[in-house]
Amino acid sequence: SLHRIKASGLKLQLCTNETQATRENFVRKLRAMGFDISVAEVTAPAPAACRLLRERGLRPHLLVHDDLVPEFAEIDKTNPNCVVLGDAAENFTYANLNEAFRVLIGMEKPVLISLGRGRYYKETDGLKLDVGAYMKALEYACDVQAEVVGKPAKSFFESALAELGVPPEQAIMIGDDIVSDVGGAQRCGMRALQVRTGKYRPSDENHPHVKPDAYVNNLAEAVDIILQQL
Amino acid sequence: SLHRIKASGLKLQLCTNETQATRENFVRKLRAMGFDISVAEVTAPAPAACRLLRERGLRPHLLVHDDLVPEFAEIDKTNPNCVVLGDAAENFTYANLNEAFRVLIGMEKPVLISLGRGRYYKETDGLKLDVGAYMKALEYACDVQAEVVGKPAKSFFESALAELGVPPEQAIMIGDDIVSDVGGAQRCGMRALQVRTGKYRPSDENHPHVKPDAYVNNLAEAVDIILQQL
Repeated sequence: SLHRIKASGLKLQLCTNETQATRENFVRKLRAMGFDISVAEVTAPAPAACRLLRERGLRPHLLVHDDLVPEFAEIDKTNPNCVVLGDAAENFTYANLNEAFRVLIGMEKPVLISLGRGRYYKETDGLKLDVGAYMKALEYACDVQAEVVGKPAKSFFESALAELGVPPEQAIMIGDDIVSDVGGAQRCGMRALQVRTGKYRPSDENHPHVKPDAYVNNLAEAVDIILQQL
Repeated sequence: SLHRIKASGLKLQLCTNETQATRENFVRKLRAMGFDISVAEVTAPAPAACRLLRERGLRPHLLVHDDLVPEFAEIDKTNPNCVVLGDAAENFTYANLNEAFRVLIGMEKPVLISLGRGRYYKETDGLKLDVGAYMKALEYACDVQAEVVGKPAKSFFESALAELGVPPEQAIMIGDDIVSDVGGAQRCGMRALQVRTGKYRPSDENHPHVKPDAYVNNLAEAVDIILQQL
């Protein structure tokens, strides 16, 4: 399906909330599975956060996964004036959480940037608390609201559109998550297809707030429909 | 001051949110400082939680400080059907938090009991996240609301009154925390004096919701006033 999109001349951007690896590693894994994808075709929370940090002159204290740290290599991290929180996994230690908290509470107006708001996810050895839970802990302790980079943030889809160089009405989002994918893309002015695979649940079709522009059975069918209308 | 209260024949109950030690250890420390206090004169969150667990037939999975575990010695902890969260300090590891989360998310209706809702506190080596922050993390991940045992919960002050065997209108609370002490005691029907020591801040006198029945400069003055009115 990816190949057919590219062969048709359409531009493509993969939007992922992956924050346990750099885009380079993420792309390497996809290429190993046979997907023809380049780093420039991936929008991920860490690069979006880096853009935000640069724009606002913010120097982060990082509480992220070790494998994500290289994404912030070019960013000045001396004398931090904000905290960037990702799915730090084993780095979510009592000491690291207290340290991130102390950086925040020491600021006149704490700035907390979170690379997502997920509640939990499943790994081979069981369910794990996701970044959103730790975000809530720090929000409560510091009485602040985090700025969330990543789906479903409008700014995240806007930066994907900026990469593509197209306005929202000329773009279409295909995704399996009713809120993070469909809701986020629509709020940004894009049309959105929900695939009935992956995270999709039949109950999504009765979601109280979000309704995709159309449902498709899978990615191949989404591509069929899009290419037919060109 | 404690001695004068006791000598007058008034009953006394110390209400603490301490959850890093058993009441036995807490009382041992106070006695070492010269205070004539017995375990029966202390109301603390863990014994209040034990009462609640027994009343509702709940078997806790504990995420608490090692030193607090003996408070739950008599409680059946097999095949847990709730999680009890205290200020676990070094026990707030990634693995322990995931484990508590898995116990909760595995229940049809997760029951989370928190021994407080504090945001943070200060120790000699710096500020630390308190139990409330971890409570918020688990609340968000499981989409539940914790039941808070400890100040300012109404049930906590009620159990102190039950220990004293007096109705709220015959009791008076003396404390330094405008919300946890004064607010909680008043919600329970007690009169409440705020001392201008400890956690007291001048801004407390403009608190939007809570107004003590009177201010006193310190505990000794509070006792003077109370004894004069006997």
